[in-house]
Amino acid sequence: MPSYQAPLRDMRFVMDEMFDYPSHYAALPCGDDASPDVVNAILEEGARFARDVLLPLNQSGDEEGCLLEGGEVKAPQGFKEAYQQYVEGGWPSLAADPEQGGQGLPPSLAMMLSEMICATNLAWGMYPGLSHGAADALRHHGTDEQKETYLAKLVEGVWTGTMCLTEPHCGTDLGLIKTRAVPNENGAYAITGTKIFISAGDHNLAENIVHLVLAKLPGAPEGSKGISLFVVPKFMPDAQGNPGDRNGVSCGSLEHKMGIHGNATCVMNFDGATGYLVGAPNKGLACMFTMMNAARLGVGIQGLGLIEASFQNSLSYARDRLQMRALSGAQAPEKVADPIIVHPDVRRMLLTQKAFAEGGRMLVLYTAQMLDIVEHGKPGEEREQAETLLGLLTPIVKAFLTEVGFECTNEGVQIFGGHGFIKEWGMEQLVRDARITRLYEGTTGIQALDLLGRKVLMSQGESLKVFTKEIHKFCKAEADNPALKEFVEPLARLNAEWGELTMGVGMKAMQNREEVGAASVDYLMYSGYVTLAYLFARAAKQSLAASEGDDQAFYAAKLNTARFYYQRLLPRTKAHALMIQAGAGSLMAMSSEDFGLGFEI
Amino acid sequence: MPSYQAPLRDMRFVMDEMFDYPSHYAALPCGDDASPDVVNAILEEGARFARDVLLPLNQSGDEEGCLLEGGEVKAPQGFKEAYQQYVEGGWPSLAADPEQGGQGLPPSLAMMLSEMICATNLAWGMYPGLSHGAADALRHHGTDEQKETYLAKLVEGVWTGTMCLTEPHCGTDLGLIKTRAVPNENGAYAITGTKIFISAGDHNLAENIVHLVLAKLPGAPEGSKGISLFVVPKFMPDAQGNPGDRNGVSCGSLEHKMGIHGNATCVMNFDGATGYLVGAPNKGLACMFTMMNAARLGVGIQGLGLIEASFQNSLSYARDRLQMRALSGAQAPEKVADPIIVHPDVRRMLLTQKAFAEGGRMLVLYTAQMLDIVEHGKPGEEREQAETLLGLLTPIVKAFLTEVGFECTNEGVQIFGGHGFIKEWGMEQLVRDARITRLYEGTTGIQALDLLGRKVLMSQGESLKVFTKEIHKFCKAEADNPALKEFVEPLARLNAEWGELTMGVGMKAMQNREEVGAASVDYLMYSGYVTLAYLFARAAKQSLAASEGDDQAFYAAKLNTARFYYQRLLPRTKAHALMIQAGAGSLMAMSSEDFGLGFEI
Repeated sequence: MPSYQAPLRDMRFVMDEMFDYPSHYAALPCGDDASPDVVNAILEEGARFARDVLLPLNQSGDEEGCLLEGGEVKAPQGFKEAYQQYVEGGWPSLAADPEQGGQGLPPSLAMMLSEMICATNLAWGMYPGLSHGAADALRHHGTDEQKETYLAKLVEGVWTGTMCLTEPHCGTDLGLIKTRAVPNENGAYAITGTKIFISAGDHNLAENIVHLVLAKLPGAPEGSKGISLFVVPKFMPDAQGNPGDRNGVSCGSLEHKMGIHGNATCVMNFDGATGYLVGAPNKGLACMFTMMNAARLGVGIQGLGLIEASFQNSLSYARDRLQMRALSGAQAPEKVADPIIVHPDVRRMLLTQKAFAEGGRMLVLYTAQMLDIVEHGKPGEEREQAETLLGLLTPIVKAFLTEVGFECTNEGVQIFGGHGFIKEWGMEQLVRDARITRLYEGTTGIQALDLLGRKVLMSQGESLKVFTKEIHKFCKAEADNPALKEFVEPLARLNAEWGELTMGVGMKAMQNREEVGAASVDYLMYSGYVTLAYLFARAAKQSLAASEGDDQAFYAAKLNTARFYYQRLLPRTKAHALMIQAGAGSLMAMSSEDFGLGFEI
Repeated sequence: MPSYQAPLRDMRFVMDEMFDYPSHYAALPCGDDASPDVVNAILEEGARFARDVLLPLNQSGDEEGCLLEGGEVKAPQGFKEAYQQYVEGGWPSLAADPEQGGQGLPPSLAMMLSEMICATNLAWGMYPGLSHGAADALRHHGTDEQKETYLAKLVEGVWTGTMCLTEPHCGTDLGLIKTRAVPNENGAYAITGTKIFISAGDHNLAENIVHLVLAKLPGAPEGSKGISLFVVPKFMPDAQGNPGDRNGVSCGSLEHKMGIHGNATCVMNFDGATGYLVGAPNKGLACMFTMMNAARLGVGIQGLGLIEASFQNSLSYARDRLQMRALSGAQAPEKVADPIIVHPDVRRMLLTQKAFAEGGRMLVLYTAQMLDIVEHGKPGEEREQAETLLGLLTPIVKAFLTEVGFECTNEGVQIFGGHGFIKEWGMEQLVRDARITRLYEGTTGIQALDLLGRKVLMSQGESLKVFTKEIHKFCKAEADNPALKEFVEPLARLNAEWGELTMGVGMKAMQNREEVGAASVDYLMYSGYVTLAYLFARAAKQSLAASEGDDQAFYAAKLNTARFYYQRLLPRTKAHALMIQAGAGSLMAMSSEDFGLGFEI
């Protein structure tokens, strides 16, 4: 069975040493509660919960899957008990508003907990995972009554939430939804329609489920401007606020999926189910984005967690598995063969995992500081800037970390060789689970359009400049530091190139809008690599500064990982830059019919 | 359910128009039988068999898997009947030696049939798939008696073959095997040991199974120099050559795998099973390589087949699925949204699949000509050169086509969005099935060492020069052709760079052998991209020459695909070149212990 230890040492490095989280927390209004002692205690307790409670259920949950019986969904054995422990431990409410019963800690802390959950049991993690988004949507857009009825239960975790967006004929293009909401006489609505791909749409973990549903009011405008958001409980709350009568919403079937078998992905049928409007009529899509942005960061963290899980087990296997001698001569002559970690190509794969795990963690914790400030900071320039950066980085966190997450879980299988393909080792499950992360909450292609089209070009490049200026400042400050030259020089070049590439696409897009879509995914990946390069340069700086004290081996390893990243991963930017510049020409020339001329008769 | 049409038009383009297969076949001693009419008939009949017989069993076979009951393995429903049709159709013997009952057609033809089989049902294809290798090993190294007993049955297909190499503690490093062969008094051997990952190790498709088994003789030298090859039948042939008594070999269990569920991957227990030495004692590894090289080309073709399968279904979905409007304005205003094939990023993914399918097909058919000449050509310079090229290209065919095969099947899932993750669409199965191809018959890392270490550097670069000279000649001949400039100029640059990079690694490797392993996978991928660039330049030349006649749209599409390849895929060489040059430093600096300092306490 795979093993897992939360990377607490690395988390502390990033939080305390690189980004000075203690001061960051102290400056937040909620900072008194987030003292270093509390933070450490939470991370250590979370690490134990993930390792001891969730990890043992990961393979069995995959094997067993979910069951739909008599209209009710049962999660795999042990999932319900683990969820009870999670609720009893107070984990769901960690970063929630004290007004709704939350502990009011900064969201960044919940994100590190989330990394541990995703690393040990992604399918389980998606039961509570969407409650935060549902709670956010209600907190921001719900009426006082809705907050009173649903929020405290969601925060406490005794109820869970869903996001009901997708329908059979539309996922990305929500303007096409057909689900209808017809007003009743009592101010409620009767919701009718079919939603698909609803994660944790039904299950036996919580006593009630709160669906946040997109539907169309009678006579609503066409397309995405005619969508409204509704809250639809599985059980109607009674006068005491407890689950009462069954509402007209049920799970029609469970999807058979490539991975995350332990999570119930439901077709949800709404048959005149009672729902209540959240926010203004026809403004549902904007409300949904409140949920979506949180969910997108969450999916990026799933990528990170899976990388760490795959890395740790690959490392352990590479140290144990004896196969061939090192090309330069036996390294373990007392054994029948050398452990495969001596082979450079195995090291290349391990370091790829390690670099993306550590780089991803820096990216998440850097972004998390922005989220803390946006959620808890005082209004003003700092918060505005944090909001801009958060908007810019969210699609990168989501798409870049899931793309490299899929790569890294596959490197894990590759390190295990044929054994990686066999279920019992658990490495192929990580690949199958990781595969969904590139798709849900907006595919990589959608994230890329959000980044390049919406965030960068629609702001005339201003949002990007906020970030590239920061990088520029760093490079300038370290320009004369010979120890950092190997990082700062290429970083400064890339940072400048980033701006030039953006300008180039922007100019072309003025002539032809398709140029945005043609460049977008390569642009997103390019942006991800440069962002991690900046963070690794900072990690290198910090490691050099700290390397005189204790823990020298840690800092030396960090420096080496940064060096590996610059030498063996960052060169991918060259390819992406050329592909960005290649433009839309070769993509758009062919007619739809001509694509099939090799095989269609 | 996924659909499939064999890409006969594209095959004809590559075979007849690009590589002049009619003349190539005519020049072979077996050429009289491979007239264009016969070739066309075989391809068309094979296309029907794949589409009508194998494709309908692909999803059901994946769903159902194999069953071990009472010590016997049952393949999924319908597999046996399909195999009977295959044998009755004479397919197994297509390219086998007439002396052993084969039809004596060139192996290249069997390879195109193999593409169709892999595209429609990879798991099924692996039942007959390893018989060729087993037959090859017996043909080259077996005694007359062994040939008489086993070969005709394998060629006819009524018996199938296996390759029993891997043991629990060794796959790549076969020198470590523990299976023992003790001589009996009658010249036979008693084979005892456990083999794992044996594809088609047991099943109910054929009346007998012929295992080719690596084992150690008493007192054999340590390591790979002490391995011998044995033939071990499941049922001992009786006096009439029919299956008689059960031999002491049986399937201990079936592996639970990520994919190819329809194929029985067996743990095989040899309990004093009767076996016969094939070839000389302790020379088993060399004999095994006869099987292995054929199998490696076969796995490369699996990659190709899966790309084509994924591409065809992605294309069909992209034409049908309506989602969003084109960025430049509605393309299908009469519909609720545009088909997603209008979006540049969807086109980028489709063209990636199309380019790797067509490029892979060119690579396979180019390599297949070498194989035809090696197998059927007269001794002399041409055959020697073909042998050198075949050796050079085999690891590229195997590893490059399976690496991009995995990428392309994943692009298929991505094009389907969330639906790609759902089993019923069949796209995720292609990913799971493709995943094994990067591992078996030598991982990508092993292929890369074979290419760079064994083929290129051990020949002092001579084997590479045979190929780069051919490319150089092409570039020189077309240097003044303005219509080809966009291809020939970058190709000539890359071809020169290929030599320089090789020299660079070679020089470094003289100081430090680890440099070979450090560069190898990037070197293999680089080599694959340049090889396809050469082939696409030739395809472009052919298309330009032919574009005045009929079928203009086909040639225009081909030219556009070549352009896409040069503009949007070939830039990846830039990254690989930099990573090759980066050297072993950052890979080797860290100790095994220091890899885990972020999480180990």
